[in-house]
Amino acid sequence: MFPQHVIARKRDGQILTEAEIQAFVRGATDGSWEDYQLTAMLMAIYLNGMTADEVALYTRAMMNSGVVADLSNIPGVKVDKHSTGGVGDKVSLPLAAMVAACGVPVPMISGRGLGHSGGTLDKLESIPGFNVNLSLSAYRDQVARVGCALIGQTKELAPSDKKLYALRDVTATVECMPLICGSIMCKKLAEGIDGLVLDVKYGRGAFMKDLAQARELAGAMVDIGNKMGKGMRALITAMHEPLGRAVGNAVEVAESIACLRGEGPADLMEVTKALCSEMLQLGGVAADDADARARLQAVVDDGSALRKFQEIIEAQGGDPRVIDDPESVLPAASQQVPLLADHAGIVQDVDAMEVALAALRLGAGRARAQDAIDPAVGVTALVKIGEVVEKGQPLCIVHANDDDAWAEAEVRLRDGIKIGTTAAAPPALIADRIG
Amino acid sequence: MFPQHVIARKRDGQILTEAEIQAFVRGATDGSWEDYQLTAMLMAIYLNGMTADEVALYTRAMMNSGVVADLSNIPGVKVDKHSTGGVGDKVSLPLAAMVAACGVPVPMISGRGLGHSGGTLDKLESIPGFNVNLSLSAYRDQVARVGCALIGQTKELAPSDKKLYALRDVTATVECMPLICGSIMCKKLAEGIDGLVLDVKYGRGAFMKDLAQARELAGAMVDIGNKMGKGMRALITAMHEPLGRAVGNAVEVAESIACLRGEGPADLMEVTKALCSEMLQLGGVAADDADARARLQAVVDDGSALRKFQEIIEAQGGDPRVIDDPESVLPAASQQVPLLADHAGIVQDVDAMEVALAALRLGAGRARAQDAIDPAVGVTALVKIGEVVEKGQPLCIVHANDDDAWAEAEVRLRDGIKIGTTAAAPPALIADRIG
Repeated sequence: MFPQHVIARKRDGQILTEAEIQAFVRGATDGSWEDYQLTAMLMAIYLNGMTADEVALYTRAMMNSGVVADLSNIPGVKVDKHSTGGVGDKVSLPLAAMVAACGVPVPMISGRGLGHSGGTLDKLESIPGFNVNLSLSAYRDQVARVGCALIGQTKELAPSDKKLYALRDVTATVECMPLICGSIMCKKLAEGIDGLVLDVKYGRGAFMKDLAQARELAGAMVDIGNKMGKGMRALITAMHEPLGRAVGNAVEVAESIACLRGEGPADLMEVTKALCSEMLQLGGVAADDADARARLQAVVDDGSALRKFQEIIEAQGGDPRVIDDPESVLPAASQQVPLLADHAGIVQDVDAMEVALAALRLGAGRARAQDAIDPAVGVTALVKIGEVVEKGQPLCIVHANDDDAWAEAEVRLRDGIKIGTTAAAPPALIADRIG
Repeated sequence: MFPQHVIARKRDGQILTEAEIQAFVRGATDGSWEDYQLTAMLMAIYLNGMTADEVALYTRAMMNSGVVADLSNIPGVKVDKHSTGGVGDKVSLPLAAMVAACGVPVPMISGRGLGHSGGTLDKLESIPGFNVNLSLSAYRDQVARVGCALIGQTKELAPSDKKLYALRDVTATVECMPLICGSIMCKKLAEGIDGLVLDVKYGRGAFMKDLAQARELAGAMVDIGNKMGKGMRALITAMHEPLGRAVGNAVEVAESIACLRGEGPADLMEVTKALCSEMLQLGGVAADDADARARLQAVVDDGSALRKFQEIIEAQGGDPRVIDDPESVLPAASQQVPLLADHAGIVQDVDAMEVALAALRLGAGRARAQDAIDPAVGVTALVKIGEVVEKGQPLCIVHANDDDAWAEAEVRLRDGIKIGTTAAAPPALIADRIG
């Protein structure tokens, strides 16, 4: 089967056969397709799309391009969560600990931040000693022993995705629903999960700008997972203002710990609990949402969720004292300067994208994959839409290690935070539930 | 300007700017775009198209990616002809000699055959000693001295086209009107011509299967040439049955020589004269078609066209005795076997594609660019649609060097040549004239 014949079929809007999709994915894995053939195909897929069946076949072929972790010896229904990415989205950290504390094993393989959105691995690595680079066998052992492991992508899992993603990044073929679905789902399915809860974000701080797109993506991913025999749920959540009050890396770990103490910001607590509830129900330990929320409240109240997080940190080489004394253990920026309101009023808007770009400029994220990040910098104590502020009151605290960056971040933040005179409220946090 | 940003604009159906088109073509020439970015762009162009202005800018950028031959010191209006390719299409050979004999300089850079259609260079190389690989300065000198040179593509001319064509060939992006136009026209414009006559063929033996497509391609190319300030004409000609009675390489040279003696098959003579007439009018030596045809008849009748061909052959190292004794000089196949009619009737059809595939199987063409060809093999004395044949009369003579090839070619030829009982006529040879 010549690559150009398969490309021609997708170019002409045909539906590819399983053998053709397998040839394409195998071509990306073993080099039997040249890079320039892979990208011609990616552009043809971008412009002509794929059917739901094609996407499922594509996902399965990508999953099977590497090792599929086998967690079948571990008792219980293994459930993971995936978010499409947002600003201040540290949900994975408290969620993993809370769900594991409730007895549902959480095998979680996460990514790094790129562009405006942060990454779970970067946040975890701000805890001194925390090692995200476990082998697959160490990962499996830890899920069995601790009930959760939080690691990074390994070379063995879905190598075709790594190859194709790198090519998509430089050929303007990233923003393509079937390719996005396949890329997300193949990695999650290779983790060895039985169920998956998706947090598909929409809004100006999210990848999907509008609700309809987010619903479509969520529906497509739920469909793929179901076709693979996995339990699937998706929540569509708003990403207009940042989630919680902290944006950065160490500062988000600190907020996650607060969350596990039951002291997190209301919006972060709500999204975390809603996603945890779905996981507990898929995991078979909660009968319904009310039951799940009661169990979650219990593991927060009795400290077992917090201790589970500590156990995970310790298992992965991190400094466990971070749980009880985050301020001493986590890296801190040299400057922690409040940004003061120049007039009184009601917060009309906190633009997640502007806050993200401010954090990026401070060094909390990376513009290119090879950039280093500064774990200490970011924003904390951020006001929320609808809150009342007095003149001279802090709108947030900027954690910076560089004066120029501070100045540019301030401009972004002042642009993003609008104070007015009328009452204001953010959009509903949870816009929809699918699956 | 990042390649992915330019690709994204074409992906989204935008009209590219001159700077963007130049960046793409420069990227193909100097390697500043990776091959996998070039092919993503080619697929986006294939699927989203280009406007006439974009195609003109693309053509100009490709032309300027290498040397543009400067023939301005050679007196007269330099005119070339380009054919989109057909079966038995040896028109370039007699045409170049006839037009040059009439005093219009013909600088002609041609290609090789690939797939079912033959190439002028392959035909010329069947003349012992003929060298198509002249340097650009030798080419210019010969056009000045002899009035015509028949050479192959050099490395200096439009290197971006060579690069992009090779990528198109393996990524299913060949059959794309804007890319075809740009590829043809950039090379012709780099020859140093003042005018160009196009022979755009349509029909099952041509690249364009229908008349409307051929008209569109012709119109687009005439438009590009005009935008570049060149005199342009296009004829749309039928390619249903092969042109003339010979298909191969040496056998087509022999038919070309017959044509220059005024003894060529009627259809070949007609297409050749019609194209020559346009060239003489563009070249400013004939006032109108009648004047042009009278001049063409004169150079055939007085032998000066034939001697001009001999002069070109001698200038390029070929054996000049081929003109007066083609049978002794040209290579001959070991078997020359007539294919006999198994019943009497009227020739209903001679399918150009079947004849081409028979010739290809005999070794006259190449399935892949790296294949060698056999100059001696092919088909001669082929019947034409509408001719009456008796049972046992030859439908053609098959020139073969291999029994298996002969047998397979015979099947193709018998499939392609249909004998019936009703009167039959081929479609009009010259379907349209543009420019």
